[in-house]
Amino acid sequence: MEAQDRGKKAAGERAVVDLVKPGMKLGLGTGSTAYWAIVKTGELYRAGKLPGLVVVPTSFDTEIQCQSEGLAVRTLASPEVDGQLDLYLDGADEFTPTLDCIKGGGAAQLQEKIVCDASKSFVIIADESKAVAHLGTKFPVPVEIASLARLPLTRRLEALGAKVVLRYGKGKAGPVVTDNGNLILDLTFEHPVDCGLMEAKIQTLTGVIEVGLFAGRAQLAYLGRSDGTCDVLTPRRD
Amino acid sequence: MEAQDRGKKAAGERAVVDLVKPGMKLGLGTGSTAYWAIVKTGELYRAGKLPGLVVVPTSFDTEIQCQSEGLAVRTLASPEVDGQLDLYLDGADEFTPTLDCIKGGGAAQLQEKIVCDASKSFVIIADESKAVAHLGTKFPVPVEIASLARLPLTRRLEALGAKVVLRYGKGKAGPVVTDNGNLILDLTFEHPVDCGLMEAKIQTLTGVIEVGLFAGRAQLAYLGRSDGTCDVLTPRRD
Repeated sequence: MEAQDRGKKAAGERAVVDLVKPGMKLGLGTGSTAYWAIVKTGELYRAGKLPGLVVVPTSFDTEIQCQSEGLAVRTLASPEVDGQLDLYLDGADEFTPTLDCIKGGGAAQLQEKIVCDASKSFVIIADESKAVAHLGTKFPVPVEIASLARLPLTRRLEALGAKVVLRYGKGKAGPVVTDNGNLILDLTFEHPVDCGLMEAKIQTLTGVIEVGLFAGRAQLAYLGRSDGTCDVLTPRRD
Repeated sequence: MEAQDRGKKAAGERAVVDLVKPGMKLGLGTGSTAYWAIVKTGELYRAGKLPGLVVVPTSFDTEIQCQSEGLAVRTLASPEVDGQLDLYLDGADEFTPTLDCIKGGGAAQLQEKIVCDASKSFVIIADESKAVAHLGTKFPVPVEIASLARLPLTRRLEALGAKVVLRYGKGKAGPVVTDNGNLILDLTFEHPVDCGLMEAKIQTLTGVIEVGLFAGRAQLAYLGRSDGTCDVLTPRRD
């Protein structure tokens, strides 16, 4: 296992062991760190240690993994869930000391933010490489957009100071399409962005479905290190 | 340029020079051979040799390329088009001597079949590697499906003799999502399939959006060779 994967595994497993309780309604994120949280949740659930647990996935990817782990998969509309979750565990592409973060490298930020905002608590799980001083200049800020708005939105996002790139992938011709049938524009900025301000600005643009900036939402971050240890961070408030 | 690309270029360019006329309503396919047809169409259009030409793309990918070539992009619903096209030019992942083919390697088979069936004529453009004796055992048959139907459809397609694989890509977490917001199952068979029969069988299954088998639709195939020459094939009728 790579050093970075050991950090992801440590963070995902430790957060589940510490925080996931029987009877909980648990939102589960998407990506290579959430993967380890789902594996550990499945292990504890199948061993009978989490009776009554129900989970709400944030992507096709996580849904498929949760099904194969034998977890009780629900949606926000399921009667047991009724639109409210106890805890949301997910990775981040980058996060700051205030626990503001960029999400959406896996193109799932719309479902992730919906599940996040339906949860009493959001806890970031991440390896050391994700902890940064500021956001926006290195890892791109993903914006899910209605395909019809691609050209006008590109111009309006450039006017906010962003370099805008339509995301391409593999396995299909042309641009990546999200689980919701939309496109992704990846934004990078010359200067660091104010997470909350830029989040609000981008959300107001017509045709934007959701932006992968999550300001002021996380209560804790489990930061896994390559030696398998884990630090638990709270938001720094200056 | 690779030998295979020289074949793709020869087929795409030659078909456009031979078949695309001023005032035509032209359907344009998706993929690395259609690419060359679109480049040539753009070149002739910008040179004033195709006045009145309008084009209908079959994917986000082709739409973006057509826009950057300066072509007059329309939809099937545009008044000049009114649901009817003169010609549809597109590649195929494999085609037989009867010009039955597999399409959908680029996950665009739904739009491609709609545009194909709205066209008076469908002409395949392909390099030599796409000409095969029979379909179904080598290049997978792509089936676009409603995501909700993934598990039941996998079982029903296995009952038709197929090995079924959910298509994954890159650029997003989890499975490839099509331009229409659906998933792709890739089917391979131990024995060759009867294109028309299997197409009809798969289309009847609930949750199937469209299958990438195109039986009895193509009138011609432009087969480009690595030396830059091109053969024009008609369907063999035994």
